[in-house]
Amino acid sequence: MKHLYYGAAYYDEYMPCERLAKDVEMLKKAGMNVVRIAESTWSTWEPQNGVFDFTHLDRVLDAMEEAGIDVIVGTPTYAFPTWLAKEHPDILGVTKRGKELYGRRQNMDITNASYRFYGERVIRKLMERTALRKCVIGYQLDNETKHYDAANESVQQLFVKHLKQEFVTCEAMNQAFGLDYWSNRINAWEDFPDVRGTINGSLAAEFEKFQRGLVTEFLAWQAKIVREYLRDDQFITHNFDFEWHGYSYGIQPDVNHFDAAGCLDIAGCDIYHPTQDDLTGKEIAMGGDLMRALKGGNYFILETEAQGFPMWTPYDGQLRLQAFSHLGSGANMVEYWHWHSIHNSMETYWRGVLSHDFAENATYREAMTIGAEMKALSSNLVNLKKQNRVAIVVSNESLTALKYFPIDVRNPDALSYNDVMRWCYDALYELNVEVDFLFPQQMEALNRYDVVVVPALYSAPESMLQALADYAKRGGELVVTFKSGYTDEYVKVYHDTQPHILCEALGIEYNQFTYPNKVYLNGETLPHSAVEGWMELVTPKGADVLASYDHYNWKRYAAITEHAYGSGMATYLACKCSKEALREVFVRILKRAGLYGPQQEIALPVKVKQGINEAGHRVAFYYNYSEQPQTVPALFGGTELTQKQSVAEQEQLTLEPWNFRIVEEA
Amino acid sequence: MKHLYYGAAYYDEYMPCERLAKDVEMLKKAGMNVVRIAESTWSTWEPQNGVFDFTHLDRVLDAMEEAGIDVIVGTPTYAFPTWLAKEHPDILGVTKRGKELYGRRQNMDITNASYRFYGERVIRKLMERTALRKCVIGYQLDNETKHYDAANESVQQLFVKHLKQEFVTCEAMNQAFGLDYWSNRINAWEDFPDVRGTINGSLAAEFEKFQRGLVTEFLAWQAKIVREYLRDDQFITHNFDFEWHGYSYGIQPDVNHFDAAGCLDIAGCDIYHPTQDDLTGKEIAMGGDLMRALKGGNYFILETEAQGFPMWTPYDGQLRLQAFSHLGSGANMVEYWHWHSIHNSMETYWRGVLSHDFAENATYREAMTIGAEMKALSSNLVNLKKQNRVAIVVSNESLTALKYFPIDVRNPDALSYNDVMRWCYDALYELNVEVDFLFPQQMEALNRYDVVVVPALYSAPESMLQALADYAKRGGELVVTFKSGYTDEYVKVYHDTQPHILCEALGIEYNQFTYPNKVYLNGETLPHSAVEGWMELVTPKGADVLASYDHYNWKRYAAITEHAYGSGMATYLACKCSKEALREVFVRILKRAGLYGPQQEIALPVKVKQGINEAGHRVAFYYNYSEQPQTVPALFGGTELTQKQSVAEQEQLTLEPWNFRIVEEA
Amino acid sequence: MKHLYYGAAYYDEYMPCERLAKDVEMLKKAGMNVVRIAESTWSTWEPQNGVFDFTHLDRVLDAMEEAGIDVIVGTPTYAFPTWLAKEHPDILGVTKRGKELYGRRQNMDITNASYRFYGERVIRKLMERTALRKCVIGYQLDNETKHYDAANESVQQLFVKHLKQEFVTCEAMNQAFGLDYWSNRINAWEDFPDVRGTINGSLAAEFEKFQRGLVTEFLAWQAKIVREYLRDDQFITHNFDFEWHGYSYGIQPDVNHFDAAGCLDIAGCDIYHPTQDDLTGKEIAMGGDLMRALKGGNYFILETEAQGFPMWTPYDGQLRLQAFSHLGSGANMVEYWHWHSIHNSMETYWRGVLSHDFAENATYREAMTIGAEMKALSSNLVNLKKQNRVAIVVSNESLTALKYFPIDVRNPDALSYNDVMRWCYDALYELNVEVDFLFPQQMEALNRYDVVVVPALYSAPESMLQALADYAKRGGELVVTFKSGYTDEYVKVYHDTQPHILCEALGIEYNQFTYPNKVYLNGETLPHSAVEGWMELVTPKGADVLASYDHYNWKRYAAITEHAYGSGMATYLACKCSKEALREVFVRILKRAGLYGPQQEIALPVKVKQGINEAGHRVAFYYNYSEQPQTVPALFGGTELTQKQSVAEQEQLTLEPWNFRIVEEA
Repeated sequence: MKHLYYGAAYYDEYMPCERLAKDVEMLKKAGMNVVRIAESTWSTWEPQNGVFDFTHLDRVLDAMEEAGIDVIVGTPTYAFPTWLAKEHPDILGVTKRGKELYGRRQNMDITNASYRFYGERVIRKLMERTALRKCVIGYQLDNETKHYDAANESVQQLFVKHLKQEFVTCEAMNQAFGLDYWSNRINAWEDFPDVRGTINGSLAAEFEKFQRGLVTEFLAWQAKIVREYLRDDQFITHNFDFEWHGYSYGIQPDVNHFDAAGCLDIAGCDIYHPTQDDLTGKEIAMGGDLMRALKGGNYFILETEAQGFPMWTPYDGQLRLQAFSHLGSGANMVEYWHWHSIHNSMETYWRGVLSHDFAENATYREAMTIGAEMKALSSNLVNLKKQNRVAIVVSNESLTALKYFPIDVRNPDALSYNDVMRWCYDALYELNVEVDFLFPQQMEALNRYDVVVVPALYSAPESMLQALADYAKRGGELVVTFKSGYTDEYVKVYHDTQPHILCEALGIEYNQFTYPNKVYLNGETLPHSAVEGWMELVTPKGADVLASYDHYNWKRYAAITEHAYGSGMATYLACKCSKEALREVFVRILKRAGLYGPQQEIALPVKVKQGINEAGHRVAFYYNYSEQPQTVPALFGGTELTQKQSVAEQEQLTLEPWNFRIVEEA
Repeated sequence: MKHLYYGAAYYDEYMPCERLAKDVEMLKKAGMNVVRIAESTWSTWEPQNGVFDFTHLDRVLDAMEEAGIDVIVGTPTYAFPTWLAKEHPDILGVTKRGKELYGRRQNMDITNASYRFYGERVIRKLMERTALRKCVIGYQLDNETKHYDAANESVQQLFVKHLKQEFVTCEAMNQAFGLDYWSNRINAWEDFPDVRGTINGSLAAEFEKFQRGLVTEFLAWQAKIVREYLRDDQFITHNFDFEWHGYSYGIQPDVNHFDAAGCLDIAGCDIYHPTQDDLTGKEIAMGGDLMRALKGGNYFILETEAQGFPMWTPYDGQLRLQAFSHLGSGANMVEYWHWHSIHNSMETYWRGVLSHDFAENATYREAMTIGAEMKALSSNLVNLKKQNRVAIVVSNESLTALKYFPIDVRNPDALSYNDVMRWCYDALYELNVEVDFLFPQQMEALNRYDVVVVPALYSAPESMLQALADYAKRGGELVVTFKSGYTDEYVKVYHDTQPHILCEALGIEYNQFTYPNKVYLNGETLPHSAVEGWMELVTPKGADVLASYDHYNWKRYAAITEHAYGSGMATYLACKCSKEALREVFVRILKRAGLYGPQQEIALPVKVKQGINEAGHRVAFYYNYSEQPQTVPALFGGTELTQKQSVAEQEQLTLEPWNFRIVEEA
Repeated sequence: MKHLYYGAAYYDEYMPCERLAKDVEMLKKAGMNVVRIAESTWSTWEPQNGVFDFTHLDRVLDAMEEAGIDVIVGTPTYAFPTWLAKEHPDILGVTKRGKELYGRRQNMDITNASYRFYGERVIRKLMERTALRKCVIGYQLDNETKHYDAANESVQQLFVKHLKQEFVTCEAMNQAFGLDYWSNRINAWEDFPDVRGTINGSLAAEFEKFQRGLVTEFLAWQAKIVREYLRDDQFITHNFDFEWHGYSYGIQPDVNHFDAAGCLDIAGCDIYHPTQDDLTGKEIAMGGDLMRALKGGNYFILETEAQGFPMWTPYDGQLRLQAFSHLGSGANMVEYWHWHSIHNSMETYWRGVLSHDFAENATYREAMTIGAEMKALSSNLVNLKKQNRVAIVVSNESLTALKYFPIDVRNPDALSYNDVMRWCYDALYELNVEVDFLFPQQMEALNRYDVVVVPALYSAPESMLQALADYAKRGGELVVTFKSGYTDEYVKVYHDTQPHILCEALGIEYNQFTYPNKVYLNGETLPHSAVEGWMELVTPKGADVLASYDHYNWKRYAAITEHAYGSGMATYLACKCSKEALREVFVRILKRAGLYGPQQEIALPVKVKQGINEAGHRVAFYYNYSEQPQTVPALFGGTELTQKQSVAEQEQLTLEPWNFRIVEEA
């Protein structure tokens, strides 16, 4: 990107009154230089089959172009028109809950031929009309695309074909999935039962993997169409989202982000997060770190909250803090969803920059300061590069497998894959360690890191486990948690000693496990604290025991171990220990890896991020996620950008409540 | 009415053995002078299509007539026979949950033509047989009629026709409902999707309003048939019920009581309420106050609990206290559901006056005292009139709108419309202020009141908001809570300053809001107490601030304001404050309105109600809703009716546990 | 049986690699002498319609026979193949939730003719192949058979025919079920509505009784086929299970165990129970006591947990303690489900003796000690007979009736039939009183007991109530709890004084009841403790009051009474009192019955069981269900079998944590 982008989604279609000229004026006043338009408004442009009316689109493009505001155009396919539902009801998805009714968005079978036919036609019309417009800098494919659990008969047909290709024979599939169990064997392809009924977690997980593949294929199909029209100076992006726990929580179960991003030029996403007293910056950082993994660099925040839900109304300073938190993670764009609060329907209380009255409000006034500051600092902060030394390996396959084989069988939601991932991520975040994420497709990149953390890698092929072991052998610091290396790529449990290939690297083995009940960690260097959620009964086979279990019956087993392996070290966390204990484990590893420095002495609510800007200068961001003023020593000297003051190394920086400072090295 | 009625629902059809003569004897002994029969026993009278057998009906009428007990006859349509379900399965409702199975009552599409045809036939047979019977004093149409969520295809056809009439063009509807959002536009009437799937709250609310209209139409249709046979001295009533929270809680979402009562002569209802330690009289008063609004005066309690559910087994004295609580609110009839406890099926543990053994039990023995007392005091208490100075405005439209746009998006049930209504109602009840209710159809009646309270009027046309503002201007005390005046009659948010038309009268404005988290009320005259559930960030524009928010980031906003407007005052409650704080706000307003008197110094568990009897005398009821004796000064002198003693003004009345005194002014 | 059996379920079909020889070696090493095979693997043996392949079966039988390990063969019908589902989709059950999808086991309509046809064919093939094999000692019919809620149209047809036979006329049925209520009358059989929709608890309960009858008929049908092939030295058994609360909790709602066992030679069951800190032996004892009732003696544990779920990983000693707990209750076989942990599908974490790695683990090592010990003590412990003096009467009909008429209408799961049964059972267990169970079919056996406890016998014909009253009259100690004798066999409430026929024997009556709210027990000899869940307002009519209610309004009613009746005594528990109070009531009764001895002075965690072995010697088991060592005086002298030491009466036996001692009288 040439500069930073700041803006909002803009829907002329949804306005209860004429607003365009006034809105453009207010956008400009707020320093906004980009709007995202058009996704999800198909029924406005094509009110009847083959009848097109691009009035709204044209007038917005005209107005933005005249005002010098850039535009990202979205393809409209994630919500389809009523006439199309009436003409082709087969487009509606069939899920475990039955046949979808028309109404909500994302209710379709994305493989449906009618949907594809009409979708392609409207995309082509859109491209013809917009690709040559000067203000259009790029396109967003669809929006938050997923498979929507659609298991229509035709989808299941495709799935069986996929399995035939994967396994060739039913017997191979039966063996891989263990279908003998409960008489579920499929001895002829035509006997394949409705997959929605299966109780076989391997089959179910394979179906979800296949469904994620449909998302990848769908976006690639759209990208191919869009590229036929795309100018060289225009990009294709997509708005990915994350597992939703009322906010962006972890990796997305229904999309393989890495694969799906293959057809894009730039990764984009939406990040929604708690605010007010619960604003920590964690989700902002995690989402950004995940996005950087997709296309190897900077990314767009295509949506984030301005006011958002009622509980997210920002305190003074928070909106600005959030925007610069995104920039510190490597975002080149911060766009709000959305410009104005909508006056009807589902998301009336998902509020935009403006409230329902369109007037300047506290949020808009803060946006004005952000816009001005982003413009002023654009050249210092755009295209920021990271040089992280620590990586976390994430796996869609493990997430799905642990959905079907939950860690806590008594309460499947008690300890999910993303919970384990966040347990690791958050501990590193609180230690002011910045991380990259690695997907299973990126095992060749392991060597770029000094420390690699592997949470709950429950399902993985042997090749991946071997790559991780090799990483340690070659000198890496490998950290593996419980529930890793347990099953293969078909979620069949490895039938030798656990954790299978990792045993040698970790210097341990186990074949029993339980849920802790009044069990505590017993280790010289670690805090005595409760073990919760899961514990494996590990026997060291060469590893040193950092902690064992404080419990009369389990005391002979190891809880946390470390093992010198080849030139490296392999640490195993056999249980979910307290965050305090985990922190100490990470401190030990970071020190060993030479990564423990002054930055790690800084504790939340102060958070530090670093990068290298286009000028090749180091830039450090010091954030205060609290309502109290904080001070922090500058990690290096240079110019403090928000105040344009010179700062010496170690000089105490004052951070006002919900505020930040940025230092660029000279 | 000529006198008070006391009785029970009586089902000869349900008896496990011959009971009629014995029951009549026991009814008489208990002083009961009315029974309600026949609703819901269609399958007994018409065992097969066109075969009628009124044996049970005839013998009950014969026996009651001979005993001098009056009878209310119910039309039987709220449960239909098995043969009819088998012949016309299309009668069964289709809801969001799918097609109903036969079994429970209230499972039909009340617009279904087959249901109407057979329903009309059985009603005519019933009328022919009973209208001329001397003992029959009136008819109840159906029972607790609602629309039962039926969205059968034919119902949806009617709905589309309703929309065509309302909006004429699709475009007008799209605009009113904001259907552009998520591509939901309907560009041709024949594209109308199954309304059960909609995510558009405006469309969904309009459908519910339409469904409530079906109830009004259904009852009017029955009334028209019944009136063809009705004697001049007979009445038509209906048994309305309330929103159910395990007991009668608030206004009924599925019926527009005011409209539906149009075809009736007298309003009737059932009120079920907690008892034992939780008996407060609140639901008895609230239900009665709502009923008085429907036909402008007295009403029937057609059902209330005798023993009811196991947790409602009354303590000694409670049954009598309850009966006279109804009379103090203006009821002319108290009927139990039901005479005897049923020996089979769904409501075996919804017990009547008699237990399963038909013997005299503690409840029956208390009923005997009630019957005797009601007879003795009938001329003093019948047709009691109220002269309340305070009214509460209630709105089905706002209730429904807040169902689709819940105040608390995190937990839709946390703060419902009826919760806000009850927050206001209960505070006034505890202040011993008696109220009338006003429906939106009654805005011309505002001037009859000194104080008008408007809870959460979320959806209202401009004309209604203007009427409320005008009321204050003309000298009224208008009290408006948060979430009022926010959307129009189609649940479209007003797109100017909130709360729209009310801004001027209230002297405030706001465009942001949030959920309170450790926020307290800060006001000189109000208790420092927590704000919970909702808070608007109000800026006074002429109003005085009674309380602001005690919170570091929200302290600049107003929480409770009052504003001199025209000749009146307008108070705004921008948040849900504690009941103690709300009480103080009401005290302030009542004092200003000259309505704060000795009655307000009396606190629950003592409750006072007043009325004017047929002789034109004031009558005051002093109730003790507690297990401890209480004393209370008489508000005026006269005759204490239960003891036939003379009482002087200010004389201390002793109230025994769960007991009451009634003073009639000389 | 000639000796004790110890073993596991073994599935060659499920192996991820060749294991047979190694497993046989390990089985032998663990002292296991029996495996159960073949149930639920139909799809492996008949991969296509009419194509049979018994490779797995043959090789396992060969290997076991050679190793001298006996085999129980299961018929495979509780899970059916994919090809059969595809050819005959009508086999899948239709329940209240709709049509089943293929996938899970136990998803069929067990009356379906196609299912029966193919089921019979595969059973015959199996019998032909296995009946003459030396190692096959017996057969298990199906597995945990139930009706699976199937209400397919054909099932409902059979039900209507059943009703015609039961009632002859609709009128009789209407009367019995009270169908007049809510117009549910059925005036012609062809009007019979879909029973899934009924809200009539009598009809619904009758349907469940009918469905339980289908299970009895299904097992009898299989037994008849199997017996055509059965050798004289082979047995037929079945694996019954219990109501499931995450573990085996109480009597099975969906099977009439007593009736269903009619076709068996030996009763069998699975018992799963909490372990680790929650191991009390209660479920082991309760399940065994229930099994002994079915065929009048010893029984098989066909499944119990080895490692089981993660929370069940046994502490050291627990597996052995559990095995001998079964033996002390009269089991002749202890088999684990299952040998090895499965590597795929639904029950991957329901772990067997071996973990997923097939290696020797802590559990296996403990199994080895058990196997050796069971072999050594087989002649001392096999065919142990009980001589219990106390019986508990259990009733499927009452359980089902209380499902439709829950004791707590506010929370139907708060106090179920099995909760009341366990309240009694557990109190006796903790008093070290061993009990037998009696089913309603066994009322002639009442006289064999000194004390008979009748929990919540809510639905019973008059003949059964009379039998219980007569038992007391003849000298028995009858103990009846609340909610007994209230309804007849059609769940119609008896319409005279409650508890109907029992009034005379108990010397009490009541017609009102409520839920206790701050109510305590008031009795001289009983602890002052809370009444919870249910209380009847009892008036003594001859009975003595052991406790009344401590509550200002209920104090005049009795809570616990006892009544001398004929030569016996009848005790009534009108409320759910604390377990401490219940214990005192039982102590009083036991003392009166001469059954209170030294054994009752021993308290949990020490548990004592006794029996008579084949040599006619008394055998006492002393179990320590705790992690602390315990001592207990020997109730009689003899040989301590685990240590082969002589023990004198009253000599203190030391019980190590989770350990036991067994003394055989000389």
